[in-house]
Amino acid sequence: MYQINENYLKLQGSYLFSTIAKKINDYKSKNPNANVIRLGIGDVTQPIVPAIIDALHKAVDEMGTMEGFRGYGPEQGYEFLREVIAKEDYQNRGCDISADEIFVSDGAKCDVGNIQEIFGQDNIVAVCDPVYPVYVDTNVMAGRAGSYNEKIGGFDNLVYMPCSEKNGFAPEIPNKTPDIIYLCFPNNPTGMAITKPALQEWVDYANKNSSIIIYDAAYEAYITEEGIPHSIYECQGARTCAIEMHSFSKNAGFTGLRLGYTVIPKELVCNGVSLHSMWNRRHGTKYNGAPYIIQRAGEAVYSKEGKEQLQMQISYYMENARIIREGLAAEGFTVYGGVNAPYIWLKVPEKMTSWDFFDKLLNEVQIVGTPGSGFGASGEGFFRLTAFGTKENTLEALERIVRAKW
Amino acid sequence: MYQINENYLKLQGSYLFSTIAKKINDYKSKNPNANVIRLGIGDVTQPIVPAIIDALHKAVDEMGTMEGFRGYGPEQGYEFLREVIAKEDYQNRGCDISADEIFVSDGAKCDVGNIQEIFGQDNIVAVCDPVYPVYVDTNVMAGRAGSYNEKIGGFDNLVYMPCSEKNGFAPEIPNKTPDIIYLCFPNNPTGMAITKPALQEWVDYANKNSSIIIYDAAYEAYITEEGIPHSIYECQGARTCAIEMHSFSKNAGFTGLRLGYTVIPKELVCNGVSLHSMWNRRHGTKYNGAPYIIQRAGEAVYSKEGKEQLQMQISYYMENARIIREGLAAEGFTVYGGVNAPYIWLKVPEKMTSWDFFDKLLNEVQIVGTPGSGFGASGEGFFRLTAFGTKENTLEALERIVRAKW
Repeated sequence: MYQINENYLKLQGSYLFSTIAKKINDYKSKNPNANVIRLGIGDVTQPIVPAIIDALHKAVDEMGTMEGFRGYGPEQGYEFLREVIAKEDYQNRGCDISADEIFVSDGAKCDVGNIQEIFGQDNIVAVCDPVYPVYVDTNVMAGRAGSYNEKIGGFDNLVYMPCSEKNGFAPEIPNKTPDIIYLCFPNNPTGMAITKPALQEWVDYANKNSSIIIYDAAYEAYITEEGIPHSIYECQGARTCAIEMHSFSKNAGFTGLRLGYTVIPKELVCNGVSLHSMWNRRHGTKYNGAPYIIQRAGEAVYSKEGKEQLQMQISYYMENARIIREGLAAEGFTVYGGVNAPYIWLKVPEKMTSWDFFDKLLNEVQIVGTPGSGFGASGEGFFRLTAFGTKENTLEALERIVRAKW
Repeated sequence: MYQINENYLKLQGSYLFSTIAKKINDYKSKNPNANVIRLGIGDVTQPIVPAIIDALHKAVDEMGTMEGFRGYGPEQGYEFLREVIAKEDYQNRGCDISADEIFVSDGAKCDVGNIQEIFGQDNIVAVCDPVYPVYVDTNVMAGRAGSYNEKIGGFDNLVYMPCSEKNGFAPEIPNKTPDIIYLCFPNNPTGMAITKPALQEWVDYANKNSSIIIYDAAYEAYITEEGIPHSIYECQGARTCAIEMHSFSKNAGFTGLRLGYTVIPKELVCNGVSLHSMWNRRHGTKYNGAPYIIQRAGEAVYSKEGKEQLQMQISYYMENARIIREGLAAEGFTVYGGVNAPYIWLKVPEKMTSWDFFDKLLNEVQIVGTPGSGFGASGEGFFRLTAFGTKENTLEALERIVRAKW
């Protein structure tokens, strides 16, 4: 008789955003005319910019002709895209990354979820707390996390690195040495960035302890301050200890187009085995490349027009971030993030839990955010708001939150 | 110190098609003017049909407007696509499959590669021999296949079901009872189909032994004969023992657009756990849905114009299959397949191996095919040719093969 992967049974509840969606649906079915404003899930709202739309149309036309049609592409991505990524995202920033170290995919979430496959079962995994749930859940599914422990509000075999007001939401070196360290900066969910010296410490630590860092740079396009690294490869020695993931979802609004990439430097070698070769094999065996037309759209992200149009879009969202951040602070709320990231990490009023705050906002003023506790035990007492709404909705949301009784 | 997944070290050579690509590149670098005709990899050559190009343009335009823009979609696929798949591919054929049992993805290869994740480590896996390498390699990576055994030309823990001239290329019930059985019909690589009574036997066997069948129906659109099932759900009882994968690559030329789907009936329950729920969780955690515009392209596959245009495309390829099959047979070659599938399974001349034949064709007449032995030990002595070339190239290829000295 066949058997299932029993690690799935250790997963907690359903995926955070599914739970939120259910609560919203329940509310809406009872209040069909309510105008619910969603500042919960990190999904963008602005349309794809014209330079990218043009590139998409052009590529679609190609696919309809004998000469232009493209079937299976290279699983690692087309050269035209890998080259421009290497140049624009790395070499122009002084990072030594070449095109053949870049693996194009259908999104950072998939890569972040799949990357753990190339590592052994017994690695000790460290995650920040609060944390993007995908890092945890994919390791649970692989059996690397152990069992859920109600007492600690986490999994027995994971190493949690609390990010709290006390440490400025910066993870500290844990007591137990981890083998695999997930880091995401600018951070989801806290919206806080890491300085280059602080990131360098992690790189040095990983090299010293033969740990590997999985670095999620999905939000780097939102960095506005100097001295904040856009890539872990800005740090000395990262080529021997770090894998980096990038998304086109946040910087170019590709949440519905699906494109991302992973960087695996060729120096990453474990007991003589190249991680680059392993991921290449994984990509070639379980994946068939991102759609050609979507890769052309990705290329247009780096065109002169594309860059200008996207810079305006990012500024638009960051103006929303400013509105929420400053507006809530002016009303006496304690807020973090929103300067180098499209997320605001709001401290909920005393004696309320994150979910209390969620329910109150939804039921009283029809605003949806994400409860901090959904991201981990240390997220309790916090609440994530995103800047990805429209400006009108953001202003309206702020007004409604302020209006509620606190 | 972190450790890799050592199962990767058990993988054999590099992926078959990478090896072939390398051989072609070597040949071309030495013979830059050679006109190499590729009938190797199963990639289509005809452009995307007009009805689908129109749907793509329309969806691209939507993405450029505030009203039409779509961000994250449902991970399982949009309702509009799941509904039409359920209706056209299943309900209209008398198969009891509902829209919410369909999981849209970016291709059958990914699904076929990922599905094993929801099963436990100790399941005994059975594959046909010859076989599409992805079924084997993904189980090797997961540690389910054991070690490679030179003596048997396969992995110790896999159950191989030889498909040879003797049994008409139909797998027989193995001596050792497998837990997971991979079947692909019409078959890649042999191009042979399975009759409904023969498939019913497998379904009955799986139900009796609590085994599960992973059924790859990627080539069903090429079926021309009566009595050949297009879906395993045409068989009684398949809802309690079978998962089915479909591709849009072969029926609609989506090899470069990337779209597929997997059907998991809700009756599939193992020790009280629903496989549908497990896959749903997996999809939600590690995947973010296929691009909206590609899903609209998928929808257009089922439109009246789409169907008519695609029927012509399939007929075009099947005419190529006829040309190769009849042409080679007339020259005294023994050939199989090519009637219900776009693959011809050619018996290579005596005293030659599959790779000898590959090298001879490439070097003497500049034709590329796929060595049967690359698909497994029982593929030795055979050679796969695809019907996915242009008609001109197919005719030219046939002439060249006949011209070579045998």
